[in-house]
Amino acid sequence: MAKIIGVAGGSGSGKTYIARLLCSFLKDAAILPLDCYYRDQSHLEKKERDLLNYDDPKVLDLELFYASLEELKKGHTIEVPQYDFVTHTRLPETRPLFPASYIIAEGILIYSHEQALDHFDYKLYVDADPDIRLARRLLRDERERGREPFSIIRQYLDSVRPMHLKYVEPTKDLADRVYLNNGFEGLGEEDLRDILLEITNA
Amino acid sequence: MAKIIGVAGGSGSGKTYIARLLCSFLKDAAILPLDCYYRDQSHLEKKERDLLNYDDPKVLDLELFYASLEELKKGHTIEVPQYDFVTHTRLPETRPLFPASYIIAEGILIYSHEQALDHFDYKLYVDADPDIRLARRLLRDERERGREPFSIIRQYLDSVRPMHLKYVEPTKDLADRVYLNNGFEGLGEEDLRDILLEITNA
Repeated sequence: MAKIIGVAGGSGSGKTYIARLLCSFLKDAAILPLDCYYRDQSHLEKKERDLLNYDDPKVLDLELFYASLEELKKGHTIEVPQYDFVTHTRLPETRPLFPASYIIAEGILIYSHEQALDHFDYKLYVDADPDIRLARRLLRDERERGREPFSIIRQYLDSVRPMHLKYVEPTKDLADRVYLNNGFEGLGEEDLRDILLEITNA
Repeated sequence: MAKIIGVAGGSGSGKTYIARLLCSFLKDAAILPLDCYYRDQSHLEKKERDLLNYDDPKVLDLELFYASLEELKKGHTIEVPQYDFVTHTRLPETRPLFPASYIIAEGILIYSHEQALDHFDYKLYVDADPDIRLARRLLRDERERGREPFSIIRQYLDSVRPMHLKYVEPTKDLADRVYLNNGFEGLGEEDLRDILLEITNA
């Protein structure tokens, strides 16, 4: 039986970095990102798709995500859907994810269904102050996607922030451990050791 | 005797807007901004001046600021220093501020000397969540000063934020009223009425 390790946290909390770090330290581990599980919107016109709120949990196929986790837990290979963020559609091709001893499920909203918490053997929530998260989001979007900073700020205020307060922040209390990641260096050595110990004992 | 009304709060909290709003509603009122009271740095080389931390209270001439408040309280006209933010020097000319029934002292660090709180008849602290403050700061700096957003974020993380947590945030507890200003519309009608009532009764 594989162990399912959750790594949640708001946008800009540094959860992807920390998920990768844990993955590199745990022997025989793999990451399953919730970002691959956006629902296909090809039944909608392009104009309607662009108007959807992609920070709302409704646009995520959490049922399929949790089903995938259960398959991985049993040691089965799964096919991970591939999502095109430009057209908001699921691509025809998938990518296989092979079984591993530790499956790191990573995403903003992985704890948003309280009845689904049993899927996880260990639940980490990566936290950071909201101004730090906004700053990181701005620095990353500029670097990686070349987006205009003022459109990022507007989107943050109009949809990222209210959805975070409504759906993400409350799941913090459901985690086994909250790691405050306000620095820009990521996980300290001592924290890393503690978390790895808790994971292997989970 | 004039009444001294303090309006403090972090960068991007909206305190300048709220100070102006209160000023327009209070009959016979004037604003004294702490921003005019930066210390003159002309004794330093330009290179040394640029290296100073202008978010640290040490660079503010709070003694002169409080002395000015006492003069205004007694009904005297004062001369307000004028500061050049580019050269970090005090200009030779001053601007007179004439006595008024209400003096609105506005600035980030006006409550930072606990022994100076007696200067104020009413202490307002305008609060906002840190991500909202950073977003406002970015939107304003782009609009008013044409600064590059990533230099604003770096400055925010390196100096504005740590100085805020160290010197500004703790003064919140010293205020008579904390007004949470997370919206982008400013003060609601009911809050405005309450605050004006508290000021006139102070």
